[in-house]
Amino acid sequence: MYELGVVYRNVQRAGKEVAAKLGVLGAATVHEAMGRTGLLKPYMRPIYAGAKVGGTAVTVLLQPGDNWMLHVAAEQIQPGDIVIAAVTADCTDGYFGDLLATSFQARGALGLVIDAGVRDVSVLTEIKFPVWSKAISAKGTIKATLGSVNIPVVCAGALANPGDVVVGDDDGVVVVPSAWAQKVLDKALAREANEGQKRAKLASGVLGLDMYSMREPLKQAGLRYID
Amino acid sequence: MYELGVVYRNVQRAGKEVAAKLGVLGAATVHEAMGRTGLLKPYMRPIYAGAKVGGTAVTVLLQPGDNWMLHVAAEQIQPGDIVIAAVTADCTDGYFGDLLATSFQARGALGLVIDAGVRDVSVLTEIKFPVWSKAISAKGTIKATLGSVNIPVVCAGALANPGDVVVGDDDGVVVVPSAWAQKVLDKALAREANEGQKRAKLASGVLGLDMYSMREPLKQAGLRYID
Amino acid sequence: MYELGVVYRNVQRAGKEVAAKLGVLGAATVHEAMGRTGLLKPYMRPIYAGAKVGGTAVTVLLQPGDNWMLHVAAEQIQPGDIVIAAVTADCTDGYFGDLLATSFQARGALGLVIDAGVRDVSVLTEIKFPVWSKAISAKGTIKATLGSVNIPVVCAGALANPGDVVVGDDDGVVVVPSAWAQKVLDKALAREANEGQKRAKLASGVLGLDMYSMREPLKQAGLRYID
Amino acid sequence: MYELGVVYRNVQRAGKEVAAKLGVLGAATVHEAMGRTGLLKPYMRPIYAGAKVGGTAVTVLLQPGDNWMLHVAAEQIQPGDIVIAAVTADCTDGYFGDLLATSFQARGALGLVIDAGVRDVSVLTEIKFPVWSKAISAKGTIKATLGSVNIPVVCAGALANPGDVVVGDDDGVVVVPSAWAQKVLDKALAREANEGQKRAKLASGVLGLDMYSMREPLKQAGLRYID
Amino acid sequence: MYELGVVYRNVQRAGKEVAAKLGVLGAATVHEAMGRTGLLKPYMRPIYAGAKVGGTAVTVLLQPGDNWMLHVAAEQIQPGDIVIAAVTADCTDGYFGDLLATSFQARGALGLVIDAGVRDVSVLTEIKFPVWSKAISAKGTIKATLGSVNIPVVCAGALANPGDVVVGDDDGVVVVPSAWAQKVLDKALAREANEGQKRAKLASGVLGLDMYSMREPLKQAGLRYID
Amino acid sequence: MYELGVVYRNVQRAGKEVAAKLGVLGAATVHEAMGRTGLLKPYMRPIYAGAKVGGTAVTVLLQPGDNWMLHVAAEQIQPGDIVIAAVTADCTDGYFGDLLATSFQARGALGLVIDAGVRDVSVLTEIKFPVWSKAISAKGTIKATLGSVNIPVVCAGALANPGDVVVGDDDGVVVVPSAWAQKVLDKALAREANEGQKRAKLASGVLGLDMYSMREPLKQAGLRYID
Repeated sequence: MYELGVVYRNVQRAGKEVAAKLGVLGAATVHEAMGRTGLLKPYMRPIYAGAKVGGTAVTVLLQPGDNWMLHVAAEQIQPGDIVIAAVTADCTDGYFGDLLATSFQARGALGLVIDAGVRDVSVLTEIKFPVWSKAISAKGTIKATLGSVNIPVVCAGALANPGDVVVGDDDGVVVVPSAWAQKVLDKALAREANEGQKRAKLASGVLGLDMYSMREPLKQAGLRYID
Repeated sequence: MYELGVVYRNVQRAGKEVAAKLGVLGAATVHEAMGRTGLLKPYMRPIYAGAKVGGTAVTVLLQPGDNWMLHVAAEQIQPGDIVIAAVTADCTDGYFGDLLATSFQARGALGLVIDAGVRDVSVLTEIKFPVWSKAISAKGTIKATLGSVNIPVVCAGALANPGDVVVGDDDGVVVVPSAWAQKVLDKALAREANEGQKRAKLASGVLGLDMYSMREPLKQAGLRYID
Repeated sequence: MYELGVVYRNVQRAGKEVAAKLGVLGAATVHEAMGRTGLLKPYMRPIYAGAKVGGTAVTVLLQPGDNWMLHVAAEQIQPGDIVIAAVTADCTDGYFGDLLATSFQARGALGLVIDAGVRDVSVLTEIKFPVWSKAISAKGTIKATLGSVNIPVVCAGALANPGDVVVGDDDGVVVVPSAWAQKVLDKALAREANEGQKRAKLASGVLGLDMYSMREPLKQAGLRYID
Repeated sequence: MYELGVVYRNVQRAGKEVAAKLGVLGAATVHEAMGRTGLLKPYMRPIYAGAKVGGTAVTVLLQPGDNWMLHVAAEQIQPGDIVIAAVTADCTDGYFGDLLATSFQARGALGLVIDAGVRDVSVLTEIKFPVWSKAISAKGTIKATLGSVNIPVVCAGALANPGDVVVGDDDGVVVVPSAWAQKVLDKALAREANEGQKRAKLASGVLGLDMYSMREPLKQAGLRYID
Repeated sequence: MYELGVVYRNVQRAGKEVAAKLGVLGAATVHEAMGRTGLLKPYMRPIYAGAKVGGTAVTVLLQPGDNWMLHVAAEQIQPGDIVIAAVTADCTDGYFGDLLATSFQARGALGLVIDAGVRDVSVLTEIKFPVWSKAISAKGTIKATLGSVNIPVVCAGALANPGDVVVGDDDGVVVVPSAWAQKVLDKALAREANEGQKRAKLASGVLGLDMYSMREPLKQAGLRYID
Repeated sequence: MYELGVVYRNVQRAGKEVAAKLGVLGAATVHEAMGRTGLLKPYMRPIYAGAKVGGTAVTVLLQPGDNWMLHVAAEQIQPGDIVIAAVTADCTDGYFGDLLATSFQARGALGLVIDAGVRDVSVLTEIKFPVWSKAISAKGTIKATLGSVNIPVVCAGALANPGDVVVGDDDGVVVVPSAWAQKVLDKALAREANEGQKRAKLASGVLGLDMYSMREPLKQAGLRYID
């Protein structure tokens, strides 16, 4: 399924501003606005709490226990990118640590999403380089087998194309196809717009049952109250 | 096994004070005082460290990927309650976020225990609404199928009846049947009473081997020391 | 495979200073210096972030749901030791809490590594007693069946002999055989020596591709760039 | 939550015939007829393919790594019973082997459902004693701590009361409350009645889309066909 | 990421003969011939041993706990197809049983690959309708929310496009892009050609070390023999 | 912890006859006779039912996704050996298939135990070469990095030394240190001796409660019968 041993250099990226705005809205809101698709599996967790980013995807396909292609990917990073890396087999090794993070940051990367392990997490936390991964492991990797850079990859169950928008926060990671980015942003903003109002109502004690007019449909569905 | 589509409104709750006191003692002490039963499986983790609560159970049975009954449950919340929610099938979706948390808090809920996922965890952390869940996921849910409120539910392997005491802290979540609450509190307090003394002894270098008179039983069991 | 019901009192420990220095270098660096062996499985996680220790192993073999031998082990602890505990079957019970931690700390232990659960984690965090475990659980244990102390044990997939060096930090836990400790330290220091220089280069924008002279081998391996 | 150290001797069992008939219908049909509740988690698997039983529950609560109460339960078995066993903590030990199976069979038990491990599975297969378990393990257990017999237990996520109907086949295990047994049987038979007819239609090439009149609702829901 | 609510009717399928031939070669050989990509995660297991098929993909995107789109997919099946179904969230429910299998078989489907659960497995085994799934569960599903048919889907970590070749046997499931099918078949046949010869040599006692000329590279890599 | 890049050629093996006899007794009986140690984790499952072997260990340490050392190990096999292979990191790849099995069988190996994946399982079943593994996967491996042969390895949580006895059947795999083999055999035979008698008693309806004189200790422990 994957084309191996290739690096695509010319990637049509989604707009940097759109990506950043989607990042501010966060994974849950963006995921809703996309019709609930594009979410990576929930085993992908941030290595520290509080990070929140939106960037454009540099995709990487890695071989198990081998981080060679992350070095190749570094050169393809442009400011505002997020590297999103898949592996051809399940692996928890620590593919990425403080040196690669230093390099990625120097290139302008906003973060890393990797369906594998990372290490040096206390340094990564210190230098505020956000990573979403499925494991933390001190185990290093070799540099022996080719994967690819900027091909479509399946990362933690989601398809990511180079240039797509990647949004990550404490709730997880969502991939937005670059062609949908603006539309998703519009929907997400619309969604966000009346959240404040709703929150105020709920905080004042109004029930969702009433605010969303659920009483009738619940009755229709057969809900019975028993005293 | 479950009665579907019903909401029991009149719940005989354990005493609010007893629940609060059990909360102060914490999950480990309460679990011991109950003869080591009533603990939810250890995959149930708090979304932030440091929360510690004891409240009375509003139980909810949810359908997979459907949070409708959480809205129904909100109306049944009384100050001092903790909502404890089970799902009819394994599911990691994010059933609960900042809006529902705002509503639950407005109703006086002290927290949520849910055998599924939650989202908006950075907001929940900020507003200090404690949640114990098995996952964090940006994925939202639909509102289409009835479950029930305030029926007996099995949550993460433990049976919870409406009105039971629910105790949650960094060590996990324990359910105390309302009829046992006072007795468990008494036992837990007795247990707690001499802990300070024991701690002081151990801190001074006295060994548990001596403090608990274990040397003889260990010898009886056949323990050999080899120099 | 295990000798049961024995406590070895005379343990030849690795040097305390070597252990401490390995601790400062951290799990990832030490693991590299050992040729990438000795790492415990990555499901072993610290109960709080930021701990970093190196000490000498007191090994414990426990029975499922039974922490008797931890009390026996306490007496064998010398200042600078780390207790590393295996269980004869998979178990997530909370074997260790604030009382045992108080005792271990009084004896001079630097931490605990346990292939099972622990509890009272908010207290352990407060008193800064680091633990690496596979679970957190309020469930206590009985004291009924013998295991052993200071025999070779397999903990989370790694073999630990009494007196070995145990290194733990946010990246995981590594066991260094005592006979290798000095050699591993030398290698790790050599490795560490030129990391600063590399970091500076990468921070300035130099690519790993160039710094590590990877372009030629990548070409040899057949990597193609497509514009 | 559990009452420990008790054996209830007088159990009101569901009718033996009803139980047997539910067994013939199988787990999937019975689960449907119950409104999709009562199913044990799908990690519960038969130790050999092809078993299909329906019987009345003798419930057992076990302690981790301790099968003492299975011996106590044996005496409570009546012909037509199925023993359903829960454990107070996660455990994969082999609680049950050929000797206990011989005893259970001699007492008239139709099978065992256990949220733990079993062993001697080649013998159990040979003597056709069906078991649904979460693990197979050669590891034996001790006989040291009391649990209970014939109290309500939570087994693999489902509540089982003594005397309930337990249905097991290759699709899993369902518990039917004894009070619902007849009603569930009636519903299940009604459901089963027109399955043959449906099967014949589908086999002849009629589509479910037409047989279930789904085309209109799909259109209403917005389904678009693209050529 | 997914386009929801659409059914693509005109699918360019890989050649039926090529698909069948790839099926005969089996998953391991085909996976090798593809450069080791395209394999579904190894948690996908056949419901019975011995099935071996190669067919063309009808892809389905399902919603959690909802099998509506399997009925829609049935109409799109042509003889020689294999249905490959993904779900938008992790789910183990039994989406597929004997009725749907009857319908699929009547339409000429050769099998089903589904990243979820199935039921009626004893009937499916009897009628020889092969299924690869991640779970077996008696739990049925609703028919309420739209997914899609014949869009690109990510199933158990692999991307499948409609018309691709799907190969399944006891070793797992591989997806071959339709454009690569002939080339992969050629490579696989070449690979297969000299396997018989190799097998005969190895059976006669020749070592792989010699047959593959590994002794020199092993020596180069530093392998030492110790007597 | 592991010595890499070495092959020990002179292995002191346990007696072939003792190993075979332990194999006949089976994993559960041998495990009991060893004081319940030496069992590999229960995730290690046979690829087909009914295999039962006892042999002497050739140990292998593999690198993730790399089966080079299995070829090296083949040369060290003597008739009556069982190869037991560990990996330096979690990996489910298919390290072993029909060609290696042919070679191992030609060398006189009785089976393979591998803490990873295997493939060609239908062929392995056909030629009756038993394998216990943690996964089945069509994914092949590379031959690039050295491990070792006949060093002590930790396989699925158990320590195995070259020359130890390995016993595998449907209940799992046990490793018996060569120095203990005769003693364990004696104990296991003694244990086995009176099993037949016990089985007959239980089959006749005698209860374990009476046969093992459990009524008094149960009463002492506080068991109450309630009518």
